[in-house]
Amino acid sequence: MTAPADILVVGSVALDSVRTPYGQVEEALGGSASYFSLSASHFSRVRVVAVVGEDFPGRYRGQLEARGVDLSGVETAAGRTFRWRGEYMAELGHAHTLETQLNVFSTFHPHLGPEHTRAPFVFLANIDPDLQLEVLTQMKAPRRVLSDTMNYWIARKPDRVVEVLRRVDVALLNEEEARALSGETQLAAAADRLIEQGARAVIIKKGEHGALYRSPEEMFITPAFPLPTLRDPTGAGDSFAGGFLGWLARSGRLDGDSLRQGLACGAAMASLAIESFSPQRLIETTPAEIGDRVAALHRMVSFRLDPIF
Amino acid sequence: MTAPADILVVGSVALDSVRTPYGQVEEALGGSASYFSLSASHFSRVRVVAVVGEDFPGRYRGQLEARGVDLSGVETAAGRTFRWRGEYMAELGHAHTLETQLNVFSTFHPHLGPEHTRAPFVFLANIDPDLQLEVLTQMKAPRRVLSDTMNYWIARKPDRVVEVLRRVDVALLNEEEARALSGETQLAAAADRLIEQGARAVIIKKGEHGALYRSPEEMFITPAFPLPTLRDPTGAGDSFAGGFLGWLARSGRLDGDSLRQGLACGAAMASLAIESFSPQRLIETTPAEIGDRVAALHRMVSFRLDPIF
Repeated sequence: MTAPADILVVGSVALDSVRTPYGQVEEALGGSASYFSLSASHFSRVRVVAVVGEDFPGRYRGQLEARGVDLSGVETAAGRTFRWRGEYMAELGHAHTLETQLNVFSTFHPHLGPEHTRAPFVFLANIDPDLQLEVLTQMKAPRRVLSDTMNYWIARKPDRVVEVLRRVDVALLNEEEARALSGETQLAAAADRLIEQGARAVIIKKGEHGALYRSPEEMFITPAFPLPTLRDPTGAGDSFAGGFLGWLARSGRLDGDSLRQGLACGAAMASLAIESFSPQRLIETTPAEIGDRVAALHRMVSFRLDPIF
Repeated sequence: MTAPADILVVGSVALDSVRTPYGQVEEALGGSASYFSLSASHFSRVRVVAVVGEDFPGRYRGQLEARGVDLSGVETAAGRTFRWRGEYMAELGHAHTLETQLNVFSTFHPHLGPEHTRAPFVFLANIDPDLQLEVLTQMKAPRRVLSDTMNYWIARKPDRVVEVLRRVDVALLNEEEARALSGETQLAAAADRLIEQGARAVIIKKGEHGALYRSPEEMFITPAFPLPTLRDPTGAGDSFAGGFLGWLARSGRLDGDSLRQGLACGAAMASLAIESFSPQRLIETTPAEIGDRVAALHRMVSFRLDPIF
């Protein structure tokens, strides 16, 4: 295996206050770029481009740096850090947003240095699609670009979201986003339609039900790693993205085998993220534990293809 | 491969009137035993024990018999056949029951002949758990018994439902039933709890998200076969059961490999059932088509287990 390649993530670094039936946290480390980079850091070197306020705790910066995450692209702006407050009900399916304070994030504009524009792997987290396109334009010759989005942008800038879909290698969407953007109710039909709309490949995230990868040529499915001890679903999607892109960057291979393995790594990392409040488990996990989860997933889904008739 | 073993199913044969966003049918062939036996008939010989009214259409009897299903245990009672009327909304997740007429089914009492009590494979569809136990008591030495249930019985006779769970080899439940019976919200925890309650093995059916098999030793997961053309979800669970138990009866093997393959056969048969109104696709499908779906599912879920780190 060659040396793992660098990954650039452009997204949010935030302070999350979350309540679930299993407990709560106040102003924990959060944001798409934080979850993504802590997850991907187990596979490869990650550089973050984001903005925080002057009140961003040094200990959170330390937690990211201790995992080897390069924060030189994280700007500190005058004002307060992006804050999100949310709540999950018994089945933990959907977050109910109680409060969003964009603060310094409302005027965020990604500033990329040469070490960023040369990154071979890129994750465009769920920021404004105009900013995603701006980042894309600056990238030299990325090997794989993964994007995320959210219903907020699909409702406001659907054309720009579709433009991003057409220009990245793989677009991540959750079920609602895939339905909203494609106009199709059934997920398999939604995936087909997104490909017709020009996406090169999509991953539809189904939360506790796993994820589906669809390109014009292929379809792969991974279940979620089953957990009896789920605590807080915050960050699951970004942690999935970190495992997926992290594995591609680590393996250096972009073939079907590697994509399938990437889905399994994504499922493993998402399962770790949601076993604790805040990204605690993502920080503490080990290569052995990640490998065990991928192997367990392999045992759960594999079957021998014998002739039936 | 030895000759496929006989399967006994005890359940309902009904007339279904169903409306979905994709169309509707009036008094189509329905009922758990009908869907199960048409599905399992592609794998093995099926004998049905059920009751119909004097108005049960001869053409439906003919459709079952044309698939080799033995209807000698289907009693014709004075009165009308069991009727169900239901509706599915856009996402097709749950049936809204508009009308249930039990008719002759309300006094159904399974009468088993020697050819029934000697069947090596048994499916106890979602009838009264007292009747399920009565059938169980009469069986000679079945190799594998699969049971189904429904919320109606879990609410009214929870102890009897648990008693069935303890006495059958594999108990099928959908998500809501698993949650109701176990008192656990997360499905992996619900499966654990059902095993603690004495189930030898459970399969939790998750509809469009597939199914999960759990025994004290093992956990297997299959996604649903992704379909862009879903029309009517009625009978999906019983068709799944038919593919699962059908494969065990056909292969004659009861090891982990065969259980995993059975889940894939179940997913393939469920996908066929829901592609048309009434069991039309189950009747018309071919060994080649079923084999193709199982192989496609294999391609979608398999991944090569390479070392990650």
